Amino acid sequence: MPRPASSTADGSIALSVVSTHVLVRGTGLIGTSLGIALSRKGYAVHLADPSPTAERLARDLGAGSLVEAQSADPDVVVVAAPPDVAAGVVADSLSRWPSAVVTDVASVKGAVLDGLRSAGADLARYVGSHPMAGRERSGAGHARGDLFEGRVWVVVPTEQSRPDAVEAVRRLAQDAGSAVVVMDAQAHDEAVAAISHLPQVAASLVAAQLRSLGDEALALAGQGVRDVTRIAASDPGLWTQILAGNAGAVRAVLARMQDDLAELVDALDRLQAAEADGGLAVINRAITHGNAGHARIPGKHGAAPAAYRPVTVLVPDTPGALGRLLTDVGEAGVNLEDMRLDHGVGLPFGLAEIMVVPGAVERLHEALAAKGWRVHE
Amino acid sequence: MPRPASSTADGSIALSVVSTHVLVRGTGLIGTSLGIALSRKGYAVHLADPSPTAERLARDLGAGSLVEAQSADPDVVVVAAPPDVAAGVVADSLSRWPSAVVTDVASVKGAVLDGLRSAGADLARYVGSHPMAGRERSGAGHARGDLFEGRVWVVVPTEQSRPDAVEAVRRLAQDAGSAVVVMDAQAHDEAVAAISHLPQVAASLVAAQLRSLGDEALALAGQGVRDVTRIAASDPGLWTQILAGNAGAVRAVLARMQDDLAELVDALDRLQAAEADGGLAVINRAITHGNAGHARIPGKHGAAPAAYRPVTVLVPDTPGALGRLLTDVGEAGVNLEDMRLDHGVGLPFGLAEIMVVPGAVERLHEALAAKGWRVHE
Repeated sequence: MPRPASSTADGSIALSVVSTHVLVRGTGLIGTSLGIALSRKGYAVHLADPSPTAERLARDLGAGSLVEAQSADPDVVVVAAPPDVAAGVVADSLSRWPSAVVTDVASVKGAVLDGLRSAGADLARYVGSHPMAGRERSGAGHARGDLFEGRVWVVVPTEQSRPDAVEAVRRLAQDAGSAVVVMDAQAHDEAVAAISHLPQVAASLVAAQLRSLGDEALALAGQGVRDVTRIAASDPGLWTQILAGNAGAVRAVLARMQDDLAELVDALDRLQAAEADGGLAVINRAITHGNAGHARIPGKHGAAPAAYRPVTVLVPDTPGALGRLLTDVGEAGVNLEDMRLDHGVGLPFGLAEIMVVPGAVERLHEALAAKGWRVHE
Repeated sequence: MPRPASSTADGSIALSVVSTHVLVRGTGLIGTSLGIALSRKGYAVHLADPSPTAERLARDLGAGSLVEAQSADPDVVVVAAPPDVAAGVVADSLSRWPSAVVTDVASVKGAVLDGLRSAGADLARYVGSHPMAGRERSGAGHARGDLFEGRVWVVVPTEQSRPDAVEAVRRLAQDAGSAVVVMDAQAHDEAVAAISHLPQVAASLVAAQLRSLGDEALALAGQGVRDVTRIAASDPGLWTQILAGNAGAVRAVLARMQDDLAELVDALDRLQAAEADGGLAVINRAITHGNAGHARIPGKHGAAPAAYRPVTVLVPDTPGALGRLLTDVGEAGVNLEDMRLDHGVGLPFGLAEIMVVPGAVERLHEALAAKGWRVHE
């Protein structure tokens, strides 16, 4: 299946988007969504799944066409199989298509790499991927072509990965709408342990404590506990696979949290025993360290954290009220950087906290007050 | 200072709002805000603070009038002093005004009650309060009259509290705009330990782990870690006081989390050692228990948790775009139950996740798509 290729300035062969053939192996949520996204971008996408029903559904959703395995001739194979079988399907793909670049989308990368090394796979053409996109629901039926838009896609080369293989995967990620970050497997797994897996465990552990509370106590729930526990609603099956697949890095970061927690409990014990030797300082340090870590999270659109200021507005609980408010914000010429809704308890309105740049606070306050909104900084 | 009082059907004397005299002792954020709120409702509010500057500022902000202590004759004294001196000021108020009802606003109630018992105070006229309202900033300068609107105000009677004293504090809380929940001191302190103090500690501990991450790893931060760590930005001074003041109950709930965490770490150890004896089941149970606890958090406006469904819309990062979207939601006749903004990384748009009742999903989807929005369920 010959295809046109274009030469680049340095003489290497670049695959042009319109001619790139991609084979997606595994047509669940991620594989099907990627097929839809790449098909729209002009890629020629073929689909394969162990389940004939699943691959036909993906085809009907516009994710690509079906092809006999022996007649497929992909430039890039994307393995979108479950994490615990990903390494096997990658190794199989590397040997079946000896000139294809192969990537996989498992959310943990070290385990896949270990599997490939054990299998003696050709790592020059393998580049790992972790598109940081997902949904509460799985399966091709919930796929959507814009699943990857605005998300980070981590591209994970090995030391043996060829530069053109890395470039092909990077371009595929960008064409799917993602922002690419490149890191090696160990750095990736340690990063997601701290930035994704630890928050999930903490949210689940905090939420688990709420099971035994009375309804009266639960009525005191404010925005804080709601934010902290939102992701505690995540799928146990998926998260068991993710945490087990990254056991080493997750264990390391949980052990560090264990140490900090033990120190806090010890400080509270000393306070209860009315010992004055530093209990307060330990508590203060824990909260202060939290301040410092929180301040390192990048702001909107990956920009450096900005010191946005809140303008809080009382919003009646009627259809369209919030829309009118935000239209008024727009008409004031102020860009809303972020927003949070804080619902009143037992009352028919909520508080909208609108984050704007500090220089816009006064102007927005005046503009909204002039339109009858109840505003405070 | 005689005032009219009205008789109720059961013959007891009810204080009528227009004639109730309140003395607010402590004119920081809470005291001043309460003074403003109650003055607007027709209460006669007097102010007192150890700092002459602070009490004059509160007066100038409309929180009430200043009065010589010996000429004050309050129906209700609200002690809005810092938690660590609250018990002393309550005891002093009970003895100085022998017919007044006295309440305090400290966020931990057991410690205040212990202090009052030690001082041999007259508990018949004491009723504790915990208005669950606050701001990132403190001081009268940031006070606002609607600080308590839509918030829960916990009214905390003792076994000795007179019913009319409880009723006076309850009405004051309602007049400030709050929804009243009544519980005893121990139940209150245990409830806030689990629903407020534990989430704060967890958020701080998770955020603290981010301090040592590289910028590249932090670039992977998604909405999950942002939600979990939002309150990690809280004030260390205030939270040291709160956690230390509720040391017993906080220690108990942290110890339970310690146990759960130790079990998880042990399960990850066994998985790394490739032992097959139940490691996966422990992880699965932790996430499942988190699901169950999360499901118990009441929904919007204190209603039972409702199964809202998300409609996700791509929103360009331009002034007014979100406002136009929400106006269109309103025009579709659909009530927005909750909303979350998920910012794209490195791309000029975000995703708005609009929560609506399940029956409205299809209608909203169609209405928004018809107006050119990129929508998916």
